This record gives sequence, structure tokens and C-alpha cells, in this order.
Amino acid sequence: MAGLKLYGVNQSTNVMRALVCLYEKGLDFEFVSVDMYSGEHKKDPFISFNPFGQVPVLEDGDIQIFESRAITEHLCRAYTEKGPTLLPSDKKALASVLTWKEVEAGQFNVPASKLAFELFYKSFLFGGTADEAVMAEHEERLAKVLDVYEVRLSKNNYLGGDEYSLADLNHLPCLHFLVGTPVKKIFDSRPHVSKWCTDALARPAWAKVVAMIVV
Amino acid sequence: MAGLKLYGVNQSTNVMRALVCLYEKGLDFEFVSVDMYSGEHKKDPFISFNPFGQVPVLEDGDIQIFESRAITEHLCRAYTEKGPTLLPSDKKALASVLTWKEVEAGQFNVPASKLAFELFYKSFLFGGTADEAVMAEHEERLAKVLDVYEVRLSKNNYLGGDEYSLADLNHLPCLHFLVGTPVKKIFDSRPHVSKWCTDALARPAWAKVVAMIVV
Ligand SMILES: N[C@@H](CCC(=O)N[C@@H](CS)C(=O)NCC(=O)O)C(=O)O
Ligand SMILES: N[C@@H](CCC(=O)N[C@@H](CS)C(=O)NCC(=O)O)C(=O)O
Repeated sequence: MAGLKLYGVNQSTNVMRALVCLYEKGLDFEFVSVDMYSGEHKKDPFISFNPFGQVPVLEDGDIQIFESRAITEHLCRAYTEKGPTLLPSDKKALASVLTWKEVEAGQFNVPASKLAFELFYKSFLFGGTADEAVMAEHEERLAKVLDVYEVRLSKNNYLGGDEYSLADLNHLPCLHFLVGTPVKKIFDSRPHVSKWCTDALARPAWAKVVAMIVV
Repeated sequence: MAGLKLYGVNQSTNVMRALVCLYEKGLDFEFVSVDMYSGEHKKDPFISFNPFGQVPVLEDGDIQIFESRAITEHLCRAYTEKGPTLLPSDKKALASVLTWKEVEAGQFNVPASKLAFELFYKSFLFGGTADEAVMAEHEERLAKVLDVYEVRLSKNNYLGGDEYSLADLNHLPCLHFLVGTPVKKIFDSRPHVSKWCTDALARPAWAKVVAMIVV
């Protein structure tokens, strides 16, 4: 197997999404730090890996891939024999995982990452103050998404079905930060969502990512 | 083959994304109109197909799937033998298509669909007035995305590589509306982007969708 290299910084939720998938799959990889403070991500060679100048980027032999959700899907498809089956091959099970994977990207991610930014990154990392109006809007939006999750998770252990899958995994970085903020209450007040969060965050692969986080 | 049914309305860009994929793949399907004006999408049985109460939903035998990008990916994976290979099986080619498919969803879609809403839906369909500030912000954001596309398309015929793929297809509905508005100029001023748009919009599968659009 040619070498796997993940380019990123260990404060980024998008990088953590790729990392937790590498750990779930039990793949050996090298983590290459990108010095974003000096703008390394906007210069060659990094910009030739990702023309948007964003982390993460994965190098897998002669393959270069960016966008965290493309990276996790690539890892599941290229390394089917390694680790848990995060992307099932059965047509029906797969359709369900694809659906809930898109729900994460299209419905959960915007309010969740805005809240994580306001409540965590802005306050703790950049020394700013959370914007109350932005927070109220996105908390309301996220609560509506979690209402749907609560019903779904009352029927299945995980979003894609009864097995943990990529649909759950892609949520982890934002979940981790949000349950460390007052927004935790909208997770706690929904028992099935709360159990799902606890289960997903307790996975050994996530503990390995947490051990790398420096913020 | 069990029957394919697509639930939606023929004014919705998200429904058109699913439609154009069904036509590309040459699949027989039934189009089931959802009466959104009377709120049919927020009631049973529709809400049991998609708990977010949004169109499109695809029924494929005993499989129900929602989120337009999950539907197109499902169709490509479940019907590999039909129509063009929109999702290649070669690991490297696939990684590239997955990457640019995420670029559409994560970078292109927000500014493009906001502009399509302001310039087309709001003005023509709902009789409102486009918001100049929103438009300026999103036109600038979209132009930056198209700068990256211009470089990419100067090296490859299509975003995922030299073959037309799901990465291009998912763009079609927004492209169609935007090239009918003053925003067309930001496509025209980039020669490779302009050629790509013309090629993609000229596909017979897209002509079949256009014939169904009632707005
Ligand atoms: N949709 C991308 C987003 C990547 C992203 O926004 N990365 C941030 C760090 S969390 C970044 O590199 N920002 C620098 C920039 O946008 O200039 C993904 O999922 O990978
Ligand atoms: N991310 C979804 C978005 C679907 C969506 O927003 N559909 C709109 C029509 S274009 C809808 O059903 N809106 C009704 C609502 O949100 O209540 C997809 O790609 O399918």
C-alpha cells in the first residue's frame, strides 16, 4: 500500500472528520501540519493539491483528494476490507446511509458549525464574543433538525440504520464541540439523540482524534 | 426491475437534479406531483418518506431515498449498467469525481442557489424584488468559485476529469437558471467555464428536464 498523508491542522473540524475515518479504518498515515498562520495553505505546493486553499487534503499514493466528506467516502470505498463497514454494499442499506450522509452535509452542518464557531472557536480560540442573534437563529434551526433525528433514532440505533456508518461519523467533530457548550441542552432534552451522541463520541477512533486536538 | 417513482414539483431545482440523472441513465420512472401549495409535503404519507417534508423523494422498489444528491448517487450505484458511467469504478477517477461532487454541494451550491432564488424564483415566480446586497455578496462568492473552475476546466473537459460525471450533472439546475439572468456574465467571461456550461446544458437528458419545467 502506498503511503497515506493527511494535510491539515489539529484545530479544524473538517480535518477531524478525515482523521476519525482514518482511525476507524485502522489505516497507517502520516499527519502533515500546514502552517495556516503563515498562509502556507494559499501557496504552492498546497494550493496545487486544493485550489480552494483549504484543509484537509488527503494524499493516497498518486491520488490527491480534498473536501472532508469526499475524503471519508474515498476511504470507505478504497479500503472496504479494513475496519468496520461504514458504507454498506447492500443496495437498500447503502441508500439509507447516502441519504443521512447528505442530511448531515445539507441540514445539520450549517447550524452546527455556525454554533461551534460562535460558541467555541470565536470565544476560546480567537478571543471574540459570540453573536447572540446568530446563535439564536442557528440554535432554532439545529433544534428542528434534532427533532427529526429524535424520531429517526427512536427506530434505529444510528442514522443510517442499526449499524454505525459514515452518516454518523461525519457528525462527530461538530458534536464534540457542541456538547461542551450550553447548546448541549438541545441534545440532552432529546433522549435518543443524547444516547446516539454519547455512543458516537465514545468510539475509540474518536478518542484518538481528541488526543490530537490542541485547542 | 421494480418501479421507480420520483415525487416532486417541476419548478424545483432539487427535483430537476434527480430528474436529469434519471434521464441520463435512461430509466423508466413515474413522476408523482406533490401539491406543495396545499402543504401535501408536510403531511402523511409524504412526511413519512422524508421527515424534513421536502422534495424530491425517490421510491425504488422497497427503497425510499431523499436529498437530491443522495438520489443521484444511488441511481449511479444501483444502475451501473445503464447509460453513461457517471460515477467511475477506477479508484483514482472516482476520488476526483467525489471531490468535485462535494465542491458543488459545499462551495458552488450556496451562492448559486441564492442567486437563482433572488434573480429568478423571487422575481418571476413569487413577484418579489431581488435583494441587491444579497446578490452582490453571492455574486462575488460565486465568481471566486468560478475562478477555480476556470483553471480546472483549462486542464480537463469536465470537473471530475475528461468524462462527464455526477460532479457536473449536480450543477445543472442552478446553471440553467443563472445563464438566463444577468449573472450569465460571470460565466461568459471565463472561456473554459462558458464552454463547460454550454456542453452540459446541451445534453439530451437536460433537454428532457427543460421540457418539463413549467416556470
Ligand atoms: N467543505 C470543506 C471545508 C474546508 C474548510 O473550510 N477548511 C478550513 C479549516 S476548518 C480552511 O482551510 N479554511 C481556510 C480558508 O478557507 O481559507 C471540507 O469539508 O473540507
Ligand atoms: N437538500 C435538499 C433540499 C430539498 C429542498 O429544499 N426542497 C425544497 C424545494 S426546492 C422543498 O421541498 N421545500 C419545502 C420546505 O423546505 O418546506 C435536496 O437537495 O433535496
